Amino acid sequence: MRAVDIIVKKRDGGEHTHAELEFFVLGYTRGDIPDYQAAAWAMAVFFQGMTARETADLTLVMAHSGHMLDLSDTVDIAVDKHSTGGVGDKTSLVVVPAVAAAGLPVGKMSGRGLGFSGGTLDKLESIPGYRTDLTVAEFKRQLRTVGAVLTGQSLDLAPADGKLYALRDVTGTVPSIPLIASSIMSKKLAAGAQAIVLDVKVGLGAFMRTLDDARRLARLMVDIARHTGRRAVALLSDMNQPLGHAVGNALEVREAIATLHGQGPDDFYRHCLEVGAHMLVLGGRAASVAQGRERMAQVIASGAAWDKFKALVAAQGGDVAYVEHPERLPRARWVETLTATRAGYIAQVHARRVGETAVLLGAGREKKGDPVDHAVGIEVHVKVGQRVEPGAPLFTIHANDPERLAQARAALQAALEWSPEPVSPLPLFYGVLGADDA
Amino acid sequence: MRAVDIIVKKRDGGEHTHAELEFFVLGYTRGDIPDYQAAAWAMAVFFQGMTARETADLTLVMAHSGHMLDLSDTVDIAVDKHSTGGVGDKTSLVVVPAVAAAGLPVGKMSGRGLGFSGGTLDKLESIPGYRTDLTVAEFKRQLRTVGAVLTGQSLDLAPADGKLYALRDVTGTVPSIPLIASSIMSKKLAAGAQAIVLDVKVGLGAFMRTLDDARRLARLMVDIARHTGRRAVALLSDMNQPLGHAVGNALEVREAIATLHGQGPDDFYRHCLEVGAHMLVLGGRAASVAQGRERMAQVIASGAAWDKFKALVAAQGGDVAYVEHPERLPRARWVETLTATRAGYIAQVHARRVGETAVLLGAGREKKGDPVDHAVGIEVHVKVGQRVEPGAPLFTIHANDPERLAQARAALQAALEWSPEPVSPLPLFYGVLGADDA
Repeated sequence: MRAVDIIVKKRDGGEHTHAELEFFVLGYTRGDIPDYQAAAWAMAVFFQGMTARETADLTLVMAHSGHMLDLSDTVDIAVDKHSTGGVGDKTSLVVVPAVAAAGLPVGKMSGRGLGFSGGTLDKLESIPGYRTDLTVAEFKRQLRTVGAVLTGQSLDLAPADGKLYALRDVTGTVPSIPLIASSIMSKKLAAGAQAIVLDVKVGLGAFMRTLDDARRLARLMVDIARHTGRRAVALLSDMNQPLGHAVGNALEVREAIATLHGQGPDDFYRHCLEVGAHMLVLGGRAASVAQGRERMAQVIASGAAWDKFKALVAAQGGDVAYVEHPERLPRARWVETLTATRAGYIAQVHARRVGETAVLLGAGREKKGDPVDHAVGIEVHVKVGQRVEPGAPLFTIHANDPERLAQARAALQAALEWSPEPVSPLPLFYGVLGADDA
Repeated sequence: MRAVDIIVKKRDGGEHTHAELEFFVLGYTRGDIPDYQAAAWAMAVFFQGMTARETADLTLVMAHSGHMLDLSDTVDIAVDKHSTGGVGDKTSLVVVPAVAAAGLPVGKMSGRGLGFSGGTLDKLESIPGYRTDLTVAEFKRQLRTVGAVLTGQSLDLAPADGKLYALRDVTGTVPSIPLIASSIMSKKLAAGAQAIVLDVKVGLGAFMRTLDDARRLARLMVDIARHTGRRAVALLSDMNQPLGHAVGNALEVREAIATLHGQGPDDFYRHCLEVGAHMLVLGGRAASVAQGRERMAQVIASGAAWDKFKALVAAQGGDVAYVEHPERLPRARWVETLTATRAGYIAQVHARRVGETAVLLGAGREKKGDPVDHAVGIEVHVKVGQRVEPGAPLFTIHANDPERLAQARAALQAALEWSPEPVSPLPLFYGVLGADDA
C-alpha cells in the first residue's frame, strides 16, 4: 500500500477500506506518512466526502490510535454528552450533576474554548481550586463515589484525531462533515462512551450554519454510533442567539448555579431538561423523554442536582464556598449596561458576534494555549422576538480594560437587529435524530 | 495575508490575485509556507481549477522565482518547442537541426525520461562524449555559431515549479490541467522562449488520455502565452501507438539519424515536418505552414539538416564517428523478433504498455535519478490499421537480461489488439490551436 495511491483513490471519489484507513491514519500518527500527504488527503475528503461506513471505520481507527478507556468496571452504562460548541453553552454544568442526581452516573471529559466558542473546562476553572486534570484512577473513583465528573482529558485519547485536527486547522480542511463527525465520535469512543446525546448546534454562532449541514452532521454521528455498536441521539438546537443570558466563564458558572436553583433563564433551563432527559432515556433511567424531563425538573426542584454539583466541585478540589456564594467568583473591574435608545422588536442577537466580543474582552482565546480571563464577559438581556422599550437593558459588559470595554460596546450594538414589526421567537430545537429512526 | 486564507479561497472556488499567488508560491519556495499547506492548496486547485488569467499569473510567478534566461543578445527571436511526453518521441533530435538548417537558430533545454515517457537527454547520451550540461555561456555561444543546441537545464530555472512539482508527485495532484500548463510554460518562459510550438500528445501513451483534456491543456497553454506576451501554437498529436518504430535510447537516435537521411518511418517524418513547419512560421522563416513543411523537406533532402545535426553533436563533445556509423552506438546482447502467429488487422499498439516494457528492459526509469541502459528497447514493426500475415515481424526486443527479455515478450503480446475486420489507421494530428484563433 502506498500513501499516494490512497490520496488518489479518495481524490477520484473512491471509498476507503478499513485497512486503507488504518494504514494511512496510523502511519500518519506514527510519522511514517508526512503532513503534506495527510493534508492533500484531507482536502480530497473535503471535496469527495465519505460514506457512513467509511466514516465509522475512520472513527474506529482514530479511537484505537491511543488508549481506550473502559468504564464497564465502574458504571452499568457509560452515557456521555457532546455539544458541537456555541455561545453561552454551559449545559454540562447543569446536566451532569442533575442526571447524576436522577440516578445515572456521568463522567464527562470536556474541552477548552477556542475562538467564539466557549469551553467547559475554562468555565469550571473560575472556581478556585477546581482540578480539571484528574487521573483515570481519580476519574473512576469519583464516578463511583459521587456519580458525577467534569474534567479534561488526562490520557492521550485518540491521538490520531489530535494530530489530524491540528493539521486540518492550518490547511483549510476543518469544515468537512465526515472529518468533523469522526473527530467528535473518536474521542467519545476512546473515552469509553456507550451511549451519547449529541447537541448539534445550528445557526450564526455555531460551526454548522445551516439546518441542512447540521442535520447531515447529526445523521452521520448517529450512524457512526450504530456502525460502532454504540447508541446515539442527536438534538438539533438553535445557536443563532446565545443560550441563556451569560457569556463568559464566571458569569456562566453563576448562571448554571442559578439554574440548579430553579432560577435560570427559561430557554437554558428547558434546554438542560431536554438534553438530560435524553441521557436518562439512553441510560435506562427513564422510560420516555417526557418522563426524563420530569425527573430532571424534580431533581432541580428538590435541590438534589444542586447538592450533586457541590459534591462534584468538592471532589475535584474546588472551594465550595465560592459556588455557595457565587458573588465571590471572579468579578470584572468595569461593569456597564447598554440600554435601548429606541423601541422595537429584537430581530437578531448575533451569537457569533456576541461570542467574538467575549473573546475580545478576554473571556476566550484566539489560539490554543492563550490564557483566559475568568471574570469578563457579557450578559445578554434580550432574546429574538422580544418587545423592547427605550431605556430597557440590552447587554451588561463585564470588562477589565476600558479600551476593550469601548470596543465591546460598539461590537454589541452591531450584534443586534431591530424590527418595527413583531418577530417570532426562535425555537430551542429543530428536531431530534435517534439511533432508532434510521 | 495568511496561507490558510489562500487555501480556503481556492477551496471555495475563488480566483487568486497575482499578489496572492506571489505570496503563496514564493513563500513556499523560500520555505516560509510549509509543504502541507502547499499540498492542501494543490488539491484544492485540482478540484476548483484556475482561470486562464490566474494560471498565467501563476506561470509568471514560477518563471520569475529563479534566473530568467535572456536570449535577445543571441537570436532575433527565441523559438522553442515542447512535447508533453510520449513513447518513441525523438522529434527534437530531427526538428532542432532541421529548423536550424532552414535558417532559424534553436537552442533547446530538454529533460530526462520518467516512467513510460522517454526523455531527449537520455537519448542523446547514447552518443559517447555528448555533453548535456552546457553552461549558459556555452549555450549562447553554440546557439550563435552552430544555430542548434540540445542540452539540459544548467541553471536552476523556475525553482518554484521544481519544488511544487516534486510535492505534486507525492500528493496525487499531478493531473491538474492548470498546474500542468503553468509547470510547462514557466520553464519555457524562464528559458527565454518568445514563441513556442507545443506538441500536446493525446491517447493511451500520453498524460492526456482524452482529446477533451488535451484540448483544454493546449488551449490553456496558448492562452498563457498570450497573457504573458509570448506566442504559442499547440498541435494535438496522436499517442495511442508509439511514434515511429524505435522505443529506447540508442534505437531512437538511430531512427532520428535515418530520418535525417530521408529514410525514417513515414509517420515520424511527417510529424517532424509539421512541428518544424510551425516553428519556422512562428520564427518568421516561413510565410505559411505549407511553406514551412516544404522547407523542412528540402533541408532533409539536401543533407543540410543532417550536417547541422553532426555539427551540433560535435559542438557538444559527442563523437561524430558514432552518428556517422550508428551501428557503433550501444547495442543490446539479446535481439529477438516476435512474429505474428495469426493473420488479421492491427487494432491497437498500446503505447503506454510498449513504453512500460521499454522501462522494464532498462531503457527508462521508475524514479528520478535511476540509471538507464542506452542499448535496450523495442522496435515496433506494426501500426494500427495494418494487415498482418502469419510470420510477419511484430516487435524486435533489444535486451541485456534474458529474464527481462522473457517478461518483455509477454508484455508486448498484451500490447497488441487484433481485428478480423479492416481497421482505420490512426491520424497523426487531431488539430492545431494557434495564438490567433482564440
